[in-house]
Amino acid sequence: MKSPSDIVSVLERELGAQAIVGPGHERLDDYGRDESPLPEFYPPECAVLVESAAQACAVLRICLERKVPVTPRGAGSGMCGGALPVAGGVVLSTERMQRIKEIDPADLIAVVEPGVITGVLQTAVEDQGLFYPPDPASLEFCSIGGNAATNAGGPRAFKYGVTREYILGLEVCLMGGELLRCGRRTAKGVTGYDLVAGFVGTEGTFGVITELLVKLLPKPPAAATVLGVFADVPTAGTAINGLLRDGLRPRVLELADKASIDHIRAKSRYRFPANAGAIVLIEVDGEAESMQMMMEKVGMRCDELGALDVLAATEPAERRSVWEARRLISPSLKEAYRIKVNEDICVPRGRIVEMLARIDRISAETGIATAVFGHAGDGNLHCNLLSNDNPDDPDVRTRMWSAAEQVFRATVDLGGTLSGEHGVGLTKRDYIHLEQSEQVIEWQRRWKAMWDPSGLLNPGKRLPARRVCNE
Amino acid sequence: MKSPSDIVSVLERELGAQAIVGPGHERLDDYGRDESPLPEFYPPECAVLVESAAQACAVLRICLERKVPVTPRGAGSGMCGGALPVAGGVVLSTERMQRIKEIDPADLIAVVEPGVITGVLQTAVEDQGLFYPPDPASLEFCSIGGNAATNAGGPRAFKYGVTREYILGLEVCLMGGELLRCGRRTAKGVTGYDLVAGFVGTEGTFGVITELLVKLLPKPPAAATVLGVFADVPTAGTAINGLLRDGLRPRVLELADKASIDHIRAKSRYRFPANAGAIVLIEVDGEAESMQMMMEKVGMRCDELGALDVLAATEPAERRSVWEARRLISPSLKEAYRIKVNEDICVPRGRIVEMLARIDRISAETGIATAVFGHAGDGNLHCNLLSNDNPDDPDVRTRMWSAAEQVFRATVDLGGTLSGEHGVGLTKRDYIHLEQSEQVIEWQRRWKAMWDPSGLLNPGKRLPARRVCNE
Repeated sequence: MKSPSDIVSVLERELGAQAIVGPGHERLDDYGRDESPLPEFYPPECAVLVESAAQACAVLRICLERKVPVTPRGAGSGMCGGALPVAGGVVLSTERMQRIKEIDPADLIAVVEPGVITGVLQTAVEDQGLFYPPDPASLEFCSIGGNAATNAGGPRAFKYGVTREYILGLEVCLMGGELLRCGRRTAKGVTGYDLVAGFVGTEGTFGVITELLVKLLPKPPAAATVLGVFADVPTAGTAINGLLRDGLRPRVLELADKASIDHIRAKSRYRFPANAGAIVLIEVDGEAESMQMMMEKVGMRCDELGALDVLAATEPAERRSVWEARRLISPSLKEAYRIKVNEDICVPRGRIVEMLARIDRISAETGIATAVFGHAGDGNLHCNLLSNDNPDDPDVRTRMWSAAEQVFRATVDLGGTLSGEHGVGLTKRDYIHLEQSEQVIEWQRRWKAMWDPSGLLNPGKRLPARRVCNE
Repeated sequence: MKSPSDIVSVLERELGAQAIVGPGHERLDDYGRDESPLPEFYPPECAVLVESAAQACAVLRICLERKVPVTPRGAGSGMCGGALPVAGGVVLSTERMQRIKEIDPADLIAVVEPGVITGVLQTAVEDQGLFYPPDPASLEFCSIGGNAATNAGGPRAFKYGVTREYILGLEVCLMGGELLRCGRRTAKGVTGYDLVAGFVGTEGTFGVITELLVKLLPKPPAAATVLGVFADVPTAGTAINGLLRDGLRPRVLELADKASIDHIRAKSRYRFPANAGAIVLIEVDGEAESMQMMMEKVGMRCDELGALDVLAATEPAERRSVWEARRLISPSLKEAYRIKVNEDICVPRGRIVEMLARIDRISAETGIATAVFGHAGDGNLHCNLLSNDNPDDPDVRTRMWSAAEQVFRATVDLGGTLSGEHGVGLTKRDYIHLEQSEQVIEWQRRWKAMWDPSGLLNPGKRLPARRVCNE
């Protein structure tokens, strides 16, 4: 192993000083952090801000030659520590690769670099009457490369699916510097094994994405948004099931619990009824001619299904105000608590109400406040564990993680999965065995070893280390 | 290598005589054929009709021990020879595994054995107000295991996506007899690498599917079907683009050319205008209240976009008669020609009209009749090469394959892919290099070797053999 300074100087020589954030640079520590709730930070030896696939390949070639770990990084907005260089070494950031190379309305595709901000891509395609559906909450600052690396979701996934369904082609740079282009420009295709589907969601542990070919849709002409306010979660759950049984296919179907509502009461322009115990946000889209009808129908069904109150709108400005309550939740929790751990567990749709009851019980037993909101249509709930204790106190952290583990165990007990959309990264890797057999994990290790036999690409992420003997 | 009779007697001893279709059995030759246009047939030593995962594992254990090739088989409805035992050995058929184990309307999932006929599953879930969207044309006789193995599509893929998007969990039996359960019961999930997404579409070369957990949707309450008749393909292509630019998201968007129309003119109850040169079939679904409006809107837009005539319906019986023209095409071609080779190429959506022109040119140059229809929304065209020459004449076959190769080359030239939904199997494996680099193919070989290092599972399929030196 060469000394740290050696790798920095080699990279600087190869890529130029302007590409390197090295020792002593004021921004270096930023590359040791992301949006995960970890108090630790992991500064790398240096970060390399590549501007091309060739530069990414050079970094991966040099680092393999010198056996230096490389941690790929998009916009750094991940919630699970996937971009943290826990083994030191080099951070390879694609943040400067922000070109939208092509938007083709006839083929309904776009070709983009990985650093393009998701919201920027959405606006660019919508300007041409097109639509890129995946809408992670971080869309104003997350990047499309990171979305592909984590197979990001978002509220609209209920109707339109997650990021994997929109990635048709990838250019990836492999550890050692090999550049691989795979996938297609067509809507469908089954020629050969689907390397692209296998790559999406691997959190930069198989390779570094340097270009994406994404599928677009025609932009839906209109949408309507309805907010139903209910007395409690079970009633809201029954309403959700009732709407789905009607055959309704909303693009968004969100749920939030009483704790979430109580945190936004004071801030929201909408005056919540005193007995509000749950909200359901429903958004439908389609032809302009049917939006008023759809809005009224959904609103009336909410009434019939026991809503205390219903807000509804079809005009964009009014729709934004209907969304306001849902949008206020996360920032309000952040403001109110020093510690906010957001676990994005996902349960089978039929177990949502039960999961919320279990979380209430865990909160009562541990004394840790919770607030739950999320994508009810998919069973994907953001369970926030909240505390105003000192985040640097190891005892506090132990208690938070212990509560998180109870949430994970309840999730798996109900047939669910630890993460619906955030990923595993660093924070969940040691909990995977709660959900998956050692056999399943071992096959994943082999898959990782196929792409990165050195184990130097994003080490310490995603998969738990092999256990020794019978431990 | 043991003698053929040896493996048959071992399997018979292990699984019982009722599980084996062995030498001398009248049905044995059937396991050497599928729906591909190959005149050859490849009888196996025996076929084993397993009834459980344990039996499938036993077959794969015994065959690896004795180094006997195994070819998995679903309903035998594949069009590319994927289920043909080209290397001899054993056919492992899942046709007897037809149990629907669970349909859960709350979780919106079903658990099924691989031999369940796709249409049977659709009916079973629709009876409960649910919906399994993938609808390959063969749905009355293909099986869900085969659909997953080929990542099957169908007309509704335009709105609802292909089979991969509906397979949440799999139980697979690996060569050697290891049983692996992977995936989840939730709509979303990113815990660990997605083994399921990697398995779908591998045509039984990675493992044998013994159970599937499929995603369901609420059944759309209503649908409307519109048939637009146009003077020629370019006008039809312009109309398709116009409809999409409006933001319309039909569930079906089919196109057929003049040759297709001419073959059904005499049989169709609908009297086609004399100058009909292309048809576009559009089906929308959604709320009952908006169907009449949607139908009229689509019909009027077809008129505005140059249709010679428009048929439209919202009632199921009338919708079936609007579908009639599209449904008659394939059987009419089969009836009219001794040879019908259906290549399901897929081009970027913007190149559909150009691809049809290229096919016309290839037909004119080779003297081989063609008829093209298919899923225009996805660019997935069924290019039928037709002949009444003797299918057993090697010269005739050479000419047909030469025309097919020209179609493949034109497809790739326009940025397309050799197969949109049928798969590669045996018939397309030697053409993959037209589309994919040796590098991409080599990574696929490594992936195959990870799951089946013996190379005994469905050998001779999917990937071309490694080339020697610079050949």
